[in-house]
Amino acid sequence: MSNTLLSLFGSELKAVNLGLESFAENLRANGADAIQVRWKPPAGGDIKMVEILDRLRRQTAVDIDAANAEAASRILKGKPTLVGVGKALDVVPGMTATTVLHSGPPLAWERMCGPMRGAVIGGLLYEGLAKSREEAEALAASGEIRFDPCHHHDAVGPMAGVMTASMPVWIFENSSFGNRAYCTFNEGLGKVLRYGAFSEEVLARLKWIETDLAPVMKQVLEAHGPLDMKNILAQVLQMGDEGHNRNRAGTSLIIREFAPHLVRLGEDPEKIAKILLFMHANDHFFLNLSMPACKCTVDAAKGIKGSTVIYAMARNGTDFGIRVAGLGEQWFTGPASMVEGLYLPGFGPDDAAPDIGDSVITETAGIGGFAMAAAPAIVQFVGGTPADALEVTRKMYEITVTENDSYRIPILDFRGTPTAIDIRKVVETGILPAINTGIAHREPGVGMVGAGLVKPPENCFKDALAAFAKTYAP
Amino acid sequence: MSNTLLSLFGSELKAVNLGLESFAENLRANGADAIQVRWKPPAGGDIKMVEILDRLRRQTAVDIDAANAEAASRILKGKPTLVGVGKALDVVPGMTATTVLHSGPPLAWERMCGPMRGAVIGGLLYEGLAKSREEAEALAASGEIRFDPCHHHDAVGPMAGVMTASMPVWIFENSSFGNRAYCTFNEGLGKVLRYGAFSEEVLARLKWIETDLAPVMKQVLEAHGPLDMKNILAQVLQMGDEGHNRNRAGTSLIIREFAPHLVRLGEDPEKIAKILLFMHANDHFFLNLSMPACKCTVDAAKGIKGSTVIYAMARNGTDFGIRVAGLGEQWFTGPASMVEGLYLPGFGPDDAAPDIGDSVITETAGIGGFAMAAAPAIVQFVGGTPADALEVTRKMYEITVTENDSYRIPILDFRGTPTAIDIRKVVETGILPAINTGIAHREPGVGMVGAGLVKPPENCFKDALAAFAKTYAP
Repeated sequence: MSNTLLSLFGSELKAVNLGLESFAENLRANGADAIQVRWKPPAGGDIKMVEILDRLRRQTAVDIDAANAEAASRILKGKPTLVGVGKALDVVPGMTATTVLHSGPPLAWERMCGPMRGAVIGGLLYEGLAKSREEAEALAASGEIRFDPCHHHDAVGPMAGVMTASMPVWIFENSSFGNRAYCTFNEGLGKVLRYGAFSEEVLARLKWIETDLAPVMKQVLEAHGPLDMKNILAQVLQMGDEGHNRNRAGTSLIIREFAPHLVRLGEDPEKIAKILLFMHANDHFFLNLSMPACKCTVDAAKGIKGSTVIYAMARNGTDFGIRVAGLGEQWFTGPASMVEGLYLPGFGPDDAAPDIGDSVITETAGIGGFAMAAAPAIVQFVGGTPADALEVTRKMYEITVTENDSYRIPILDFRGTPTAIDIRKVVETGILPAINTGIAHREPGVGMVGAGLVKPPENCFKDALAAFAKTYAP
Repeated sequence: MSNTLLSLFGSELKAVNLGLESFAENLRANGADAIQVRWKPPAGGDIKMVEILDRLRRQTAVDIDAANAEAASRILKGKPTLVGVGKALDVVPGMTATTVLHSGPPLAWERMCGPMRGAVIGGLLYEGLAKSREEAEALAASGEIRFDPCHHHDAVGPMAGVMTASMPVWIFENSSFGNRAYCTFNEGLGKVLRYGAFSEEVLARLKWIETDLAPVMKQVLEAHGPLDMKNILAQVLQMGDEGHNRNRAGTSLIIREFAPHLVRLGEDPEKIAKILLFMHANDHFFLNLSMPACKCTVDAAKGIKGSTVIYAMARNGTDFGIRVAGLGEQWFTGPASMVEGLYLPGFGPDDAAPDIGDSVITETAGIGGFAMAAAPAIVQFVGGTPADALEVTRKMYEITVTENDSYRIPILDFRGTPTAIDIRKVVETGILPAINTGIAHREPGVGMVGAGLVKPPENCFKDALAAFAKTYAP
């Protein structure tokens, strides 16, 4: 033996163990120092995925890193701007009088979960296409209604995400690239359509949004001019919001921005006061602005050849789905997960519907759960500790391409939010995107029962990667 | 020698050094391990102070710890509530037509710094007691004007803190104890009276505050009812504010709280819109609410026999002063320090006036600099890093009696803000209260030139402790 080797045996044993932890445990049990390296095999040891990752590394037909850099750059360059208010039928591409848009990937009536069905029923009642729950259910099952994802119409919707022809929508434009995105108005808390409620009270509120709130907001925006949402989102991340599940700062900034213009309309003071009180009473008013802002931002990455960056994640309460920049408009889906979180008094996990809604577009754009470190107070709402919130954001840097140069997190030394999710990194590390979300009751008509964090199904990312390899490195 | 001692000389030398660091440096230079303990002698080795601290520990005439627990408990129990708006002459105790209140401890005209003189000139012009700068200066020097600290009239004022008879004031009540506090309205940024400006523009704005803003706010408060400022302050600490130098969340919350009531007054829309725009344009609008909220909170500790808790800190641009619960209304003063911070473009340390203003009442109540960890984004304004902001708050726990059970800092695992400063702890540790503040130009009429952190003069605390020992352990 060499001297070096001899000296090894002569000195105290200090082992570094990699792999099965029981090896280190045995050494420790026999009095030796042993450090267990926190290492997992790539892709959790999934041979097929390891082979694909390796194949993509070796192929030369397309420069994936360059394509991802382009996707990330387009996302960073995005300038989401609130430009107006319109009626869905008039402004949302492909909308018809008998179309019902919903959240998540495509989904037939038969496979819809409770709250999704409730919201569809509510949408049909609101449009006057049905007169009762029974009529609405029969119509929904008849084939006469076209169900389509919001995402297929440049739109997003929270929770059930139901949008019908008469509903007013916020109109966003990504002023760097000219593409648009649409979202309905947030209805408030409690019994609301997006959680599958469809009572008289819910329909009356939707009507008030259509007849009072939206026309006033349309005028306010005309008076105010386009609103730079990139600036607002940058600010809320310095004010304890993450833009998905905590929106107190965002709603506050919108109110102070619009209030002077609301007053100047010269409308009936009671009407304006009701609108201000409606916004004041519902911090999620801002969610339906942050979502389309994120949607029009990430859509600019759609269709970049050779890119493994995700430009959409969405759930419909049955399936979770993703879309990848280099793979066109295809959805890769898996079963919607259950949310882990905190429940409102009187509710528990047995009451929960699976993960639902397009609001995960915020995480897709690098805020929401990805910016949880900016919003440590949110753990009171979704569970965990402030340290967990920091850790969630830190982990997301491992599966993203870049850091946002506008959306910065003070407590992380103003580091930019982790942006542009790369499916290769998700599969290789096994780290799944972290999503903050609300929890809907499983039955239609009940409403919100809690909030928490949810992990998407891993197979979406693996299936997308396999499809990517088939397309680009066959 | 014993075996133990022998074994010490047989093994490698590992020294722990306490005191002069050069001892450790010499050992290290000779190849030995040496750890330098970060230790300072109590009271920085000030023998007189060490003797006093020791004497207070031994005396039994009064239970200082129990008295401080009572002071801290009163501060925690405080419920600062915004209850109304009034004219200083009508509502502020002891106010007269020829009184000029100012920030900080008592101060004669002759010793006033530039911005304080400017604000006094402005106040006399605003009241019509003088027609020109020269007339105002002559009147101020004549002895016909009574100068008095805001603090002697249950009031506080930011920067120069000048309050005259016609000025409208916010009226706060500590609803747990019934005591009140008063503060003028914040004038906005740029050239303003509190920074010593007194041009036509400044006086016109003060007049608008008197004739338009204040009467409207008085009506709004009557319609809204008393506003629970404890709840608002608890919220802003979860939204990136610290309630002294960063007030974006606070101003936003006030706007959303009042906007519906503003609309319902049925006043001219342009008048209301101007008020909303005024608040929207000035995030320090909230400062003149957080200050009297803190003032009426800590005042409840005044006069507690045997307590070493500070119930007021204040600066007038010449002197810094403190008042201690167990020492009645006496001020202990030292020279106002220079602020270390960031300057607005075109300005530097040579332009700065010394530390000025009653806004340090926020730190006295455990927010402001003491809650800097809640507002890491503030370092862009006052200098330093987010890690520094955390460290500032952590240090303040060493000189305070308790932690606030309502004002909590998410990133510190919702730890309560360090509350109730104990002069014994300040003297013993040598840790001075950390204060966030604005920087005024040294000449009257210029305005704000920067913002930063400032340390009060150490002798105030030592003098107060000596006086305390003389009173309670003679």
